[in-house]
Amino acid sequence: MQTIDESALALHKKYKGKLGTTALFPVKDKEMLSLVYTPGVGAVSKAIAKDAQLSFEMTNRGRTIAVISDGSAVLGLGNIGPEAAMPVMEGKSLLMKLFADVDSVPLVIKTQEVGEIINFVKLVAPTFAGINLEDISAPRCFEVEEALQDIGIPVFHDDQHGTAIVVMAALLNAAKVVKKPFEALNVVVVGAGAAGLAVTKMLLGIECQSASCRIIDGAQRVKDVIVVDSQGALWAGRNNMNVYKQAVAGVSNKQKKQGALEEVIVSADVVIGVSGPGAITASMVQAMAKDSIVFAMANPIPEIMPDVANQAGALVVATGRSDYPNQINNVLAFPGIFKAVIDNCLPKITQAMKQSAALALAQLVTKPDRQNILPTAFDHSVVPAIALAVKEAYGK
Amino acid sequence: MQTIDESALALHKKYKGKLGTTALFPVKDKEMLSLVYTPGVGAVSKAIAKDAQLSFEMTNRGRTIAVISDGSAVLGLGNIGPEAAMPVMEGKSLLMKLFADVDSVPLVIKTQEVGEIINFVKLVAPTFAGINLEDISAPRCFEVEEALQDIGIPVFHDDQHGTAIVVMAALLNAAKVVKKPFEALNVVVVGAGAAGLAVTKMLLGIECQSASCRIIDGAQRVKDVIVVDSQGALWAGRNNMNVYKQAVAGVSNKQKKQGALEEVIVSADVVIGVSGPGAITASMVQAMAKDSIVFAMANPIPEIMPDVANQAGALVVATGRSDYPNQINNVLAFPGIFKAVIDNCLPKITQAMKQSAALALAQLVTKPDRQNILPTAFDHSVVPAIALAVKEAYGK
Repeated sequence: MQTIDESALALHKKYKGKLGTTALFPVKDKEMLSLVYTPGVGAVSKAIAKDAQLSFEMTNRGRTIAVISDGSAVLGLGNIGPEAAMPVMEGKSLLMKLFADVDSVPLVIKTQEVGEIINFVKLVAPTFAGINLEDISAPRCFEVEEALQDIGIPVFHDDQHGTAIVVMAALLNAAKVVKKPFEALNVVVVGAGAAGLAVTKMLLGIECQSASCRIIDGAQRVKDVIVVDSQGALWAGRNNMNVYKQAVAGVSNKQKKQGALEEVIVSADVVIGVSGPGAITASMVQAMAKDSIVFAMANPIPEIMPDVANQAGALVVATGRSDYPNQINNVLAFPGIFKAVIDNCLPKITQAMKQSAALALAQLVTKPDRQNILPTAFDHSVVPAIALAVKEAYGK
Repeated sequence: MQTIDESALALHKKYKGKLGTTALFPVKDKEMLSLVYTPGVGAVSKAIAKDAQLSFEMTNRGRTIAVISDGSAVLGLGNIGPEAAMPVMEGKSLLMKLFADVDSVPLVIKTQEVGEIINFVKLVAPTFAGINLEDISAPRCFEVEEALQDIGIPVFHDDQHGTAIVVMAALLNAAKVVKKPFEALNVVVVGAGAAGLAVTKMLLGIECQSASCRIIDGAQRVKDVIVVDSQGALWAGRNNMNVYKQAVAGVSNKQKKQGALEEVIVSADVVIGVSGPGAITASMVQAMAKDSIVFAMANPIPEIMPDVANQAGALVVATGRSDYPNQINNVLAFPGIFKAVIDNCLPKITQAMKQSAALALAQLVTKPDRQNILPTAFDHSVVPAIALAVKEAYGK
């Protein structure tokens, strides 16, 4: 019998990837040719030349998202470059098509210079209705995304926001299961990269531009978050923090706790691992508050295995894996997010819209229990619910 | 009844463009999801990280061409910008799919700086098996294309080479119709832009890099070509020529004829218009050699209307229009060219390969006559014949 790896290699080789293009209608005679190409197409070009906004209505731009990566932080594989990142980007495009009927194009680019990535996205923007940045390493990803917030189409870094949306939804329901108010939760986030900082901002209901953060009115928020990186807890005033960690430190860890994970995790209600295998130990979970919640999201090997976490006292455990209950998978978020972008021609995706997406996702599970805090990726109600929530939150 | 323009606008609005994406296979359960996305996709990424060439075998890169334009020279519309260029680029992608089953992605970019265009193509190259540059104005298009000849995948500017291939094929057959040896033809080319210079190089069997040209062994070539721009004939030593015109001047117009079109066209066997409406008059055609050949390719209004040219003595007339006989349309060339690129993973497209494509295209018309010097775009033998010719000429 083939392993997953062998099956994946064989599948990709058989089909030469996963995504193709398709004609929206046939062209079988000269008359039709004269409409899709010269001379008829000239009328469409002239109309758009007068009003560029018509490009969303009359070309595939209005239906199409770019999935852009520099291959610097791919899955658990790290900096493997653009060519090797393509299978993952193509996977995202495939799922966007299959789950939300959104067309998208994977673009892997041969640079890891922040300025060049920003410029590339600006240059290619007239081709697309939105941009999904993917697998760009922190802290470069923050700088890239911030520089692209006002280019007229949404730029959404999925490793940050897709993860944050699904974690938020999972935690809303996990809180119900352990019968603790969401607003009372003390959370520890292990890892201060793209996902760690984004999850923290989402759970605290804040939005940051570099060093400056602002509170989102009406957002749901936990009591506090402590973020831990390789040098221990982030706290306002600590040395050795980039500007993005500084910003988060300034609004989290209100008691300015210092020290390693094993120290700051004591009595926490929730620990969220977005770092690497083995980062969370059984004794750490034992030191947490009663009926604790453990999200161990490193892929493919979690920070702590679910059975170990359960034995150490965790009541709800989630991972990124499909072979355990409670899979926290970005595919629950990004197809619906971009469905909303396409259907409503949205110019940006704000933090309030992301929070709405999280609430909508959580509400799809009417009676959460220890093994069911999230819908599955194949639940057909997910995409429309998220798309509607994002649309309704636009402009609020 | 709707005009062509009205029908084209309605069609593009109805479908939101012409091109979509499609999943190559369904993903209906967790097992399949684990192959196309995490964790299985990691094995594919790892394999490509070890050997980037595998990206052609295991991802859609191996099946996909980029159609890239800056919107600076679109059809007869000129510099209308990236958004307005999209309907044309999407049209090329549509035809590549329908006629050759080649996947391609239109990318319109927001810059007209030569350096930025070159850099953009280099950055995005790991995503694609080949690049079709389109509707970039001369002389910028020459500089862009030359700078990209050694990036590992073919870069083909269709306005130059697609046009040159189809014109060469048409002229090979037109020569048979007028019973003059191809090698004896004296040709005048009206227009020294992308198409004019490329047609000239093709007809003379030469290949140029900026100022330096070399003769292609074994190429078919006409006796001489005189290129005419807005200031009259190009000749070696004339002032006011960019480096690309200088190069062509150095190998054409052997008698260094000077003067306006109406002077140098006297006694010519062939005139090829790639300039604009009305550039060729009846009296000019009357001054040509007996049984002359007139290709008037400006779109939608030719340099001279076919009936006027015929009355003035032209025996074979071709235009870019579908409503007259002998349509010279790039769609006869580019789908087959890129089919060859995809099927054989070709790293570049040389002038010898382009000449082979032209010869193969000409040979598809077994008995050319005044009204039939080229196959139609819907002739199913065109793409395989060109793809085979290009493949066989590779490396020669």
